Amino acid sequence: MQEQQQDFKNVFCMEGGQGESSYINNSQSQSRNLKMMLYALEETLDKIQLPRHRPGNKPLLTAADLGCSCGQNTLLIADVIVDHMTDKSFGSKDDDGLEFCFYFSDLPSNDFNTLFHLLPQQAAAAGRDGRQSRRYFAAAVPGSFHDRLFPERSINVFTSTFSLHWLSQVPKRVVDKQSPAYNKGKVFVHGASEETGTAYQRQFRSDMMRFLHCRAAEMKPGGAIFIVSLGRLSSTRGPTEQGYIYEVYCSMFEDSLRDLIEEEMVDGEKMDNFNVPLYAATVEEFKEAVDADGSFKINQLELVMGSPPVVDDPANRGVVGRMVANYMRALFGPLVNTHIGGAMADELFIRMQCRAEIRAEELVDEMCFAHILCSLSLV
Amino acid sequence: MQEQQQDFKNVFCMEGGQGESSYINNSQSQSRNLKMMLYALEETLDKIQLPRHRPGNKPLLTAADLGCSCGQNTLLIADVIVDHMTDKSFGSKDDDGLEFCFYFSDLPSNDFNTLFHLLPQQAAAAGRDGRQSRRYFAAAVPGSFHDRLFPERSINVFTSTFSLHWLSQVPKRVVDKQSPAYNKGKVFVHGASEETGTAYQRQFRSDMMRFLHCRAAEMKPGGAIFIVSLGRLSSTRGPTEQGYIYEVYCSMFEDSLRDLIEEEMVDGEKMDNFNVPLYAATVEEFKEAVDADGSFKINQLELVMGSPPVVDDPANRGVVGRMVANYMRALFGPLVNTHIGGAMADELFIRMQCRAEIRAEELVDEMCFAHILCSLSLV
Repeated sequence: MQEQQQDFKNVFCMEGGQGESSYINNSQSQSRNLKMMLYALEETLDKIQLPRHRPGNKPLLTAADLGCSCGQNTLLIADVIVDHMTDKSFGSKDDDGLEFCFYFSDLPSNDFNTLFHLLPQQAAAAGRDGRQSRRYFAAAVPGSFHDRLFPERSINVFTSTFSLHWLSQVPKRVVDKQSPAYNKGKVFVHGASEETGTAYQRQFRSDMMRFLHCRAAEMKPGGAIFIVSLGRLSSTRGPTEQGYIYEVYCSMFEDSLRDLIEEEMVDGEKMDNFNVPLYAATVEEFKEAVDADGSFKINQLELVMGSPPVVDDPANRGVVGRMVANYMRALFGPLVNTHIGGAMADELFIRMQCRAEIRAEELVDEMCFAHILCSLSLV
Repeated sequence: MQEQQQDFKNVFCMEGGQGESSYINNSQSQSRNLKMMLYALEETLDKIQLPRHRPGNKPLLTAADLGCSCGQNTLLIADVIVDHMTDKSFGSKDDDGLEFCFYFSDLPSNDFNTLFHLLPQQAAAAGRDGRQSRRYFAAAVPGSFHDRLFPERSINVFTSTFSLHWLSQVPKRVVDKQSPAYNKGKVFVHGASEETGTAYQRQFRSDMMRFLHCRAAEMKPGGAIFIVSLGRLSSTRGPTEQGYIYEVYCSMFEDSLRDLIEEEMVDGEKMDNFNVPLYAATVEEFKEAVDADGSFKINQLELVMGSPPVVDDPANRGVVGRMVANYMRALFGPLVNTHIGGAMADELFIRMQCRAEIRAEELVDEMCFAHILCSLSLV
């Protein structure tokens, strides 16, 4: 597990490339959910100060998407920001050519090459046709959003969508055999012991505060952050009850891994020493972290139920099973590959697919994730 | 050929990955030559204005390496800049924490993923051990240095090493069957007709002026550019005499392609419609372009003979042949793959290797490339 800890930043990413289980081909749900929430991104943009002319310079708006992965969604966000801020500056004294610089940031293991191939090639400033070309300068920034990524006071607006539920690491106590928080026989926090739950909860809080602390240093005065993250309903039941859909997913995954262990294809230890650092926080947990950091004021913070999954043929169990397995693999594939090897990961996801076929109707009806929607302004 | 023209920016790059013919494993000569010229980079850095404190901000120095590829050399340049500027600011009123942001730029087809794996993971500002971590914020910028890449007045220092000899495209007349500049039966400008030579020369001039025009817009006041590029001795003989070592390389390559055509493995057209947009300019051609653009003054401009190649066992013909073939493939591999397919490219480089084995002694003794060394300051 120490290995998993140390290597997390090196191996963790969404599945790259263009294959069937790539993130690019399995992020339609995120896309649909994101589109539902773009109004809130626009409202966040309305909070930021328009950049001003400096002598001899066009005003420059810098934006960064943190945890961008390598799909179309990050480009959609860039377009929304450019459209909205261009409209907003129109008619103001700064409407003669606002420049945009957009930073795509994710861990170094992210497939940036695929992202670059999606990008319209030429920045608009080169004087080419605006429709064909990118209306912003683009750069990729490799690194963890739990650390500093940008120079001081260099960014006007941060976005982070479907990323902040990924913790910086599995909490140390969860992988310590001597600790009551040791997550024996489980892979997720959902359904784990209370101690494991508390460890995950603390890790989230500490990660979120680091995230906010770094962003506060990097943000220009008048800046804002827009966040969409997996979340869970507030309840008295605590962090080990991540929600019904997690129960379905986690149990399918854990049962499939257990199959491989029972069939002696995978060593039993591989269950105890594998944990997925995914945590769906409540609105209250978000608020607590923001308040504790103190650099930001909350413009909006709520739980929004996402839309159901995009399935080509929802009546076809085979199609649903395949979609669910691909979706899981797009998210966890690289982690699982590293832990049990590619061949065993293939086996595992085949078993997940069978389980998903059996539960196809339930999955199509109930596969809606709750999201935290959060808009913050620098104090 | 139209296809080659259009796709140039999409396919052109140094060979990525970590394989035997990857750029990362075949850029030792560039490394050695670069190290010889670092004194001139430091002199260029001495010309730039130190960034100043702004209220509430640390002073920030931004640097960009254009045509960075994916090897260690670009990281070496970043380190030299950070070291030198840190020393320079030491003792000044700005010595309490100069921040650095380094942009690695190349065409979108460059293997940025490999580059990101080489980068020390964490930026120093995260407060970790300075030796282990990167002392600069890092970002990758995909695009052609013949176009705009950065917002206005955003960069203090540009570097471009071993890149500016790559033209933005094969000159149009060179691929026009009706033109006297049509480069029939040849792949390089070396040894081509006078008309072909003139077309390459004009393309270089126009590309170089676009490069300088874009950089002038992107540069902060007081900024400077450091360039190392393949160059050739001034002569009355013109651009089709690129130099002796080009003659050796070009003829080995062209003869190998001719072999495949004669053996009917590759269609004869593939010779006439393949051109490598590589041009070694003279000091005078550089000066002309800089003067015509008018935005920069020349601090230094000279031709420097590079050091001989790095060969493990120079007496072993097999080793030399392999090194030469890998070196060529690191530079031209992706272009050749696109033009005749990977399998035929394998065949071609095997034949190159045989030819290089035969000429091993000559290659070891004379494989020194001349370089233009150029330092410019924004007027």
